Amino acid sequence: MIKVKLIGASGYDGIGMIELFLGHPQVKLTALVALENVGQPISRLFPHLEGACDMPILAASDPRANEARDVTIMATPDGVGMQLAAAELEAGAQVIDYSGDFRFNSPESYADYARRMGRDPNHRAPQLLNQSVYGLPELYRAELTARPRLVGNPGCFAVSCTLGLAPAIKNKLVQLDSLICDCKTGVSGAGKKVNVQHHFPARYENMNAYRLSGHQHVCEVERELGLLAGEPLRVTFTAQVVPVCRGILSCLYGTLRPSVKLEDVKEAYQAFYPAGGFVRLCERDSGIGTAHVRGSNYCALVLDVDERTRRLRVVACIDNLMKGQAGNALQNLNLIRGLPENTGLTQPGRYP
Amino acid sequence: MIKVKLIGASGYDGIGMIELFLGHPQVKLTALVALENVGQPISRLFPHLEGACDMPILAASDPRANEARDVTIMATPDGVGMQLAAAELEAGAQVIDYSGDFRFNSPESYADYARRMGRDPNHRAPQLLNQSVYGLPELYRAELTARPRLVGNPGCFAVSCTLGLAPAIKNKLVQLDSLICDCKTGVSGAGKKVNVQHHFPARYENMNAYRLSGHQHVCEVERELGLLAGEPLRVTFTAQVVPVCRGILSCLYGTLRPSVKLEDVKEAYQAFYPAGGFVRLCERDSGIGTAHVRGSNYCALVLDVDERTRRLRVVACIDNLMKGQAGNALQNLNLIRGLPENTGLTQPGRYP
Amino acid sequence: MIKVKLIGASGYDGIGMIELFLGHPQVKLTALVALENVGQPISRLFPHLEGACDMPILAASDPRANEARDVTIMATPDGVGMQLAAAELEAGAQVIDYSGDFRFNSPESYADYARRMGRDPNHRAPQLLNQSVYGLPELYRAELTARPRLVGNPGCFAVSCTLGLAPAIKNKLVQLDSLICDCKTGVSGAGKKVNVQHHFPARYENMNAYRLSGHQHVCEVERELGLLAGEPLRVTFTAQVVPVCRGILSCLYGTLRPSVKLEDVKEAYQAFYPAGGFVRLCERDSGIGTAHVRGSNYCALVLDVDERTRRLRVVACIDNLMKGQAGNALQNLNLIRGLPENTGLTQPGRYP
Amino acid sequence: MIKVKLIGASGYDGIGMIELFLGHPQVKLTALVALENVGQPISRLFPHLEGACDMPILAASDPRANEARDVTIMATPDGVGMQLAAAELEAGAQVIDYSGDFRFNSPESYADYARRMGRDPNHRAPQLLNQSVYGLPELYRAELTARPRLVGNPGCFAVSCTLGLAPAIKNKLVQLDSLICDCKTGVSGAGKKVNVQHHFPARYENMNAYRLSGHQHVCEVERELGLLAGEPLRVTFTAQVVPVCRGILSCLYGTLRPSVKLEDVKEAYQAFYPAGGFVRLCERDSGIGTAHVRGSNYCALVLDVDERTRRLRVVACIDNLMKGQAGNALQNLNLIRGLPENTGLTQPGRYP
Repeated sequence: MIKVKLIGASGYDGIGMIELFLGHPQVKLTALVALENVGQPISRLFPHLEGACDMPILAASDPRANEARDVTIMATPDGVGMQLAAAELEAGAQVIDYSGDFRFNSPESYADYARRMGRDPNHRAPQLLNQSVYGLPELYRAELTARPRLVGNPGCFAVSCTLGLAPAIKNKLVQLDSLICDCKTGVSGAGKKVNVQHHFPARYENMNAYRLSGHQHVCEVERELGLLAGEPLRVTFTAQVVPVCRGILSCLYGTLRPSVKLEDVKEAYQAFYPAGGFVRLCERDSGIGTAHVRGSNYCALVLDVDERTRRLRVVACIDNLMKGQAGNALQNLNLIRGLPENTGLTQPGRYP
Repeated sequence: MIKVKLIGASGYDGIGMIELFLGHPQVKLTALVALENVGQPISRLFPHLEGACDMPILAASDPRANEARDVTIMATPDGVGMQLAAAELEAGAQVIDYSGDFRFNSPESYADYARRMGRDPNHRAPQLLNQSVYGLPELYRAELTARPRLVGNPGCFAVSCTLGLAPAIKNKLVQLDSLICDCKTGVSGAGKKVNVQHHFPARYENMNAYRLSGHQHVCEVERELGLLAGEPLRVTFTAQVVPVCRGILSCLYGTLRPSVKLEDVKEAYQAFYPAGGFVRLCERDSGIGTAHVRGSNYCALVLDVDERTRRLRVVACIDNLMKGQAGNALQNLNLIRGLPENTGLTQPGRYP
Repeated sequence: MIKVKLIGASGYDGIGMIELFLGHPQVKLTALVALENVGQPISRLFPHLEGACDMPILAASDPRANEARDVTIMATPDGVGMQLAAAELEAGAQVIDYSGDFRFNSPESYADYARRMGRDPNHRAPQLLNQSVYGLPELYRAELTARPRLVGNPGCFAVSCTLGLAPAIKNKLVQLDSLICDCKTGVSGAGKKVNVQHHFPARYENMNAYRLSGHQHVCEVERELGLLAGEPLRVTFTAQVVPVCRGILSCLYGTLRPSVKLEDVKEAYQAFYPAGGFVRLCERDSGIGTAHVRGSNYCALVLDVDERTRRLRVVACIDNLMKGQAGNALQNLNLIRGLPENTGLTQPGRYP
Repeated sequence: MIKVKLIGASGYDGIGMIELFLGHPQVKLTALVALENVGQPISRLFPHLEGACDMPILAASDPRANEARDVTIMATPDGVGMQLAAAELEAGAQVIDYSGDFRFNSPESYADYARRMGRDPNHRAPQLLNQSVYGLPELYRAELTARPRLVGNPGCFAVSCTLGLAPAIKNKLVQLDSLICDCKTGVSGAGKKVNVQHHFPARYENMNAYRLSGHQHVCEVERELGLLAGEPLRVTFTAQVVPVCRGILSCLYGTLRPSVKLEDVKEAYQAFYPAGGFVRLCERDSGIGTAHVRGSNYCALVLDVDERTRRLRVVACIDNLMKGQAGNALQNLNLIRGLPENTGLTQPGRYP
């Protein structure tokens, strides 16, 4: 059994991890750590876990929180992982961090990201940055299988955009200055903390765009796509929130290079995403929506070419809390521990 | 492995069964039967099943639909089971029927139910009625463990009302002429078929009561509670629909007999529902709602005594498609095949 | 024109009042007062009002807030009205208060209510209590027409329950010890202030009962129905919240006295609520739901007798922010100023 | 008073018109015509209208449907208006048609549109096409004020896209081959007819793109923007549906021409949309969403320049049943009858 410690157990991100571990045949949770509600069983905060996981929430300093573990998951907001990672690594654990703290490999690229977040651009553990692998398995499977010590789990929007555009960029199907990501998310993406924007009556039957000046996830998308392109690129990115709980629907646009056809697009994507993985290519008339990936780790991509305007359109659907967060983290955990990538992740969600 | 044939595979009720079988260690689906979409893989209709279950839908007459099976699930509407059950039984299968066809043990009690439904009161297979067990495991565990040939899975509202009131009735805590069941359901309870009442714009931000003159599920509740009381009784039952997908919230009322106290109530319920089962007793201030049982087979009961009016109030929460339907059916299947009751049913739902 | 000052302008309750005044031919708003956002135009907080009402929010002490007014609306929470009412009355204004502060005519009955709220049972302006009229026009039209100085606008749940049961109680159709009010509300009833219970992801697809030990609105219902009965009575009351924004659906139950028939019930209600008023009697099969009263001041009542259990069932639908709050307040304002009761209130809501 | 006949009274489009007429000081409805439910009062179908509009639904052939009228509104689907318009015009009425039948001025451009709809490309009343004015008042105010006989009310998506991009196109701010319209609509846009895609459980918590190969509204957008550009152009258009009832949120993109700045954009839009009209320019951080235009005829535009990618982004919000349909139709009616454009249209919606 893989012994796992979970820091940040009481957010939506932590709870999703616990739910997945309950269905995983080779993970044993050793400790749940959080700042608040210390001493309470996690099932008091999340009653659906009663009987399934009644472990107590521990303070970070609690000796029980520091027993031997193989992996530490840090389901924590920006700024926490960079403070705690070194100690976990020293204790012999591999670390998967949910935040932006370890998604970047240099202090400079981190600083860019941090500025967009309005955070201190100085990383607190810069010496660790070059050890971290960006945890998008479809792009970094080899690096993850090499059992890295540190993984930066990607942002939910970034997962949908990067997966949706990677094959087109890698195969030079689209012009690099033409990329637009129009992304809609359910409200759970904003986490458990209350907020006037997400008070139920304010959010019900309300859709809006936000942070037009630049959502922080765009940094990851540009970095990853730029690496695939072999040159820097920029994307126009629009974050929108719609009144559902789970789901990201991203429409991704790029102008096709001359003579590229829909068949070329399909071939490139089929080669990039072989059947059997978590990325699925769906037909244009399949009616695929976010409900069909809800509760699962799958990413559905619909490929379309608008011949009239010579534009590629990719529609990407994920569950922001699964492939956009905890599911993807478990996929990473499987890889860095040498397990089949989909262990504990094959169950479809419930429909409707 | 238990070989299972599923008739009525393409409704919400059938799909719920398939989802559960995918996580069950000892069930092997042998055939999916439905009237429509014959020949198509079930995952074409329900794309979330792609890769997990791509079996084709078969016509009832297809030889592949009639290979050896241990259990036949009939996830079919009223009137179908009574026509098909005999052949399944003759083929050696145990049968679990979702409809009202086998919830009653005599032609007379069936006729009562059928009249409320506006259906022909004459049962088409009356000779089978006395072989059927009412599939509410918390009341009929012994009969189900005796491996009956035929099980009538209960109605979703009836599950919530009967579980919520059974201990009070059995222990004579409330007056029998004082029972009121005020029940609210999500829209999935009405099934997959389109309907002007459940067209999205008509249902959004709309709650209403319906079938005031008598929902058919009340027959089951009265029969079961009457058996526990040792005398016939009647309940006032109100069905309401609210704009969510899954969930039943039932408020159940009865006037306490003199001198009965909250402690007596708690003792009776704790004795009736030992810890570890699918019925959970929750504290009054636990904030339990339908979201906490969504996707799981649990039934949460909050017990309350209004001392000012000397009335017992029980608030029952279930997922209408799980403990109200497919989850409960799997619980029955486990019992009639000699498996631990909760096999394949312990996974909590996903929250939020 | 009637000059109106609005205190508590920036809550859902205040905004509803402003929206209604914009369509009222004889009201002129003179001042908007609130504690927060002083100096900002109200349309900055509520952008839908841009161009329609751009008045600034004033501090209570601002001289502009104290210019001549005929009526002061206090759309404020419990405890505020009792502190401010005297000064408004002295300034010559008639006062309509939204909270429980002036719904009770004696310090004793107020104390009962305050204890349920967990508030100080001592009223701060006891000398005003006997001047106040309970602002439910269908019961107190005569008193309101007599131009009282002070009106206590009723609670939203109380409106639905009292209107739904008043004719039955007055006409002695039901047994007084048999009353149950099972009430479901949309989330806007809890106001604008954020709350973990009403954070969108926590509330989405979640229904639950709350404050089982006794919602404070039950005091009003018991008082009013007791006055109609000519003797004290108690009701069992259950508050529930469902994930919609607007709407209250209350199912009200009482055991019929011997020999009372549905026709007697209908006659009593028709006499109590003559055609043309804001209470409408609907047929059992009308499919009436909360969507049909959303945005309007109407209360829809469906009358039903369950002959099997000899129980009266009344289903009441209102918009909690209209007939449950601002709409009812405007109805009161019309009456205390001698205008036709429905002035500015006849517009139906928008459907769907 | 302006006498108005309404054909297609019983859809969401018709009912929206009736609701608006009830608040209009100078419109008198003379007849409601529909194919179904003939003889029933409209308030039987739409109970919220009880008391406000109880007119019966008439068959088209009913003499009462053909009394003198000044204006005929055809709230009917494609193909109906072209059959009925001539008779209405001959009877002396001005005609406003909701469908695509009269949005195009030549048989050729109509044929393009019809083919996208999968309809017969031959117009049934081609002689009328050159008399029709495209009913988008912000672009055709002069033509509408000239009291045309025939108006083609625009498509809901087209309203949001055309209003959002018109000033940028007219002022040559963006490159014509760079236009992308990413549009999300609530479900009411699909009308009252039931549909498996919009069955409540199938639509709840589900977002998806549809008709990727080309939504029909794109024809109008390209025609109007092309006229403003002075040359033909094409746009990439993506229709998406999200689980709310009302609202369109369109994100509109175009690459800025060299040296164009945000200030240039703002000036162009302010000049095109003077204050006081139904198009409002909102600040980037205003948090404006569809809830703020729900129930009103306003269109909110947020202007943004992404300097990193040199792209203009316009976020447009409308209520698809108001500025996207009935509200815009009333705006047209006011203009073609010489009334102030906003008569009966200034009331804000209700919030929340």
